[in-house]
Amino acid sequence: MARAPGVSMSRMDTAAATLPTFDDVLDAAARIARLAHVTPVMRSHALDSLADCSIAFKCEHLQRTGAFKFRGACNAVWALPDAVAARGVVTHSSGNHGAALALAARTRGIACHVVVPTGAVATKLAAIEAYGATLHRCEPTIAAREARCDAVQRETGATLVHPYTDARVIAGQATAALELINACGEFDALVVPVGGGGLASGTALAMARLAPRCRLFIAEPAGAADTARSLAAGERLVDFVPDTICDGLRGTLGAPNFSILLAQGAHALVVDDADTVAAMRLLWTRMKQVVEPSSATVLAAILRHREQFAGLHVGVILSGGNVDLDDLSQLFQLS
Amino acid sequence: MARAPGVSMSRMDTAAATLPTFDDVLDAAARIARLAHVTPVMRSHALDSLADCSIAFKCEHLQRTGAFKFRGACNAVWALPDAVAARGVVTHSSGNHGAALALAARTRGIACHVVVPTGAVATKLAAIEAYGATLHRCEPTIAAREARCDAVQRETGATLVHPYTDARVIAGQATAALELINACGEFDALVVPVGGGGLASGTALAMARLAPRCRLFIAEPAGAADTARSLAAGERLVDFVPDTICDGLRGTLGAPNFSILLAQGAHALVVDDADTVAAMRLLWTRMKQVVEPSSATVLAAILRHREQFAGLHVGVILSGGNVDLDDLSQLFQLS
Repeated sequence: MARAPGVSMSRMDTAAATLPTFDDVLDAAARIARLAHVTPVMRSHALDSLADCSIAFKCEHLQRTGAFKFRGACNAVWALPDAVAARGVVTHSSGNHGAALALAARTRGIACHVVVPTGAVATKLAAIEAYGATLHRCEPTIAAREARCDAVQRETGATLVHPYTDARVIAGQATAALELINACGEFDALVVPVGGGGLASGTALAMARLAPRCRLFIAEPAGAADTARSLAAGERLVDFVPDTICDGLRGTLGAPNFSILLAQGAHALVVDDADTVAAMRLLWTRMKQVVEPSSATVLAAILRHREQFAGLHVGVILSGGNVDLDDLSQLFQLS
Repeated sequence: MARAPGVSMSRMDTAAATLPTFDDVLDAAARIARLAHVTPVMRSHALDSLADCSIAFKCEHLQRTGAFKFRGACNAVWALPDAVAARGVVTHSSGNHGAALALAARTRGIACHVVVPTGAVATKLAAIEAYGATLHRCEPTIAAREARCDAVQRETGATLVHPYTDARVIAGQATAALELINACGEFDALVVPVGGGGLASGTALAMARLAPRCRLFIAEPAGAADTARSLAAGERLVDFVPDTICDGLRGTLGAPNFSILLAQGAHALVVDDADTVAAMRLLWTRMKQVVEPSSATVLAAILRHREQFAGLHVGVILSGGNVDLDDLSQLFQLS
């Protein structure tokens, strides 16, 4: 794959790289309790039969803003001291994290700035603006994005909240697995999707304390399999250009996220987009749940690697449900 | 509209026309308790804001077989004496009732026969067969359908379970409203879709005892508005040819169903298909729930008649979630 210059040297990847602890996860759970939904856990006889195992689906597509991202954003926003919070927050995500940070900031009554590249999807930008954030447009390069973020920080004093390397974000995302394990007991295996690794590393943190015998599997699109390669190599390999329909999983694995996943012995399962779309179709038709492609990678991974899960009690996190219905017919043609 | 000969004279419409009582509803609830799901009740801040009222959505699309129909079918099957049940059941629905009766029969280990017209949707027939029913094909006329049903009854001794006039079916469908009211308390208004009237009349039965001050609204597609016309006229007018995308609501209002709705003072709200599709899009994107067009009529009715519901606590039943994803792009173009 072609080199994406600068990705591995991004300052944002190393900002706030202190690793969160399990106590941070408990603090996050307490902090977001009155703001985030305790999402339901669903089961499906039909999908259990297909997969030959028992699956508990943690429904983060039913979380506020339609994705687990609200947990981390909410924890980050509410962890700030008053004087710091008053200057607002800033990030550079035109996807679910941008919307989540915008709503989290609104719950605290502070400003939110979102740096977005020209060419970002209009409906997603509209959602971010609807939650009250200010958009700052920049050229679609990492250098332009960082320069614009720096400028916003200088001008406003806003705190940067990185989508997945921020320790407060990781601790917040961990609360999904915390709730899932508290609701269902210890699993034989947990399967979560991985992009930048915020959810995956948060899940690892929660499991390490609450379900030490449970194995952690991370589902990753073949067209953005930097985590699988990094875990196999024992070092973070970030040199790739993503090519996948899973728009939530195109990010580059963060450094703290990699450390946590490596320490927890996470196993990567790589899935093709066609399998992901087929799994998404099953989740829509059998569970009647609108989930986005990124969420469906977990079921695709289980169905593709059925022998590894046979007879087990498996927990998965359905990460989000933000899809554009007008793109659907094109999407489902892939399966 | 053109006359559909024979509809009003159907013997099936008057078969088993004894009206069920509230005690029958309680018996049904006890009978199906270990077989049917107690479906969740969902709420959406976004939809409440749009509708300017507080809506509790009873999620029957998450019922077994993906529709409320399993309640009535299950009650009918399990209400039969052993010797009668042993000869099986028969019906003539290629939609949700056919699948529901097939699964209900399977839970009792008895035969299920489903008479289906040539030209019925292949995926729906496959679902009915997957639940173990035997398909009997006939010409797509009411006379052919009744003749084939009669023949099956003669040959097998199977009991006819009509999709919506059967008293046991009505009592079973009533358990959805029973659960909804028990979970949420008395509502100001309930809104349910109406086709043949099984769900609507069952809801009326449950309300009459449990929520006597609650108003019952029934949402009906403009292209199949026989119930609205019948209630307005004070007599059952069944002379129409349905023209609506709501495949679950094309049936003709049954005689017992009409009696119950009239007695309860039900108010019909007629909705256009375009409004229904727009409401369906909202349910998919905001609530992340895959519901079929018939289910979306209730939200369409509330949004279209907003002034009638302003500030109220409203309960609705999302009746089913069985859609063909391959038809979606065509469907959503309507909105």
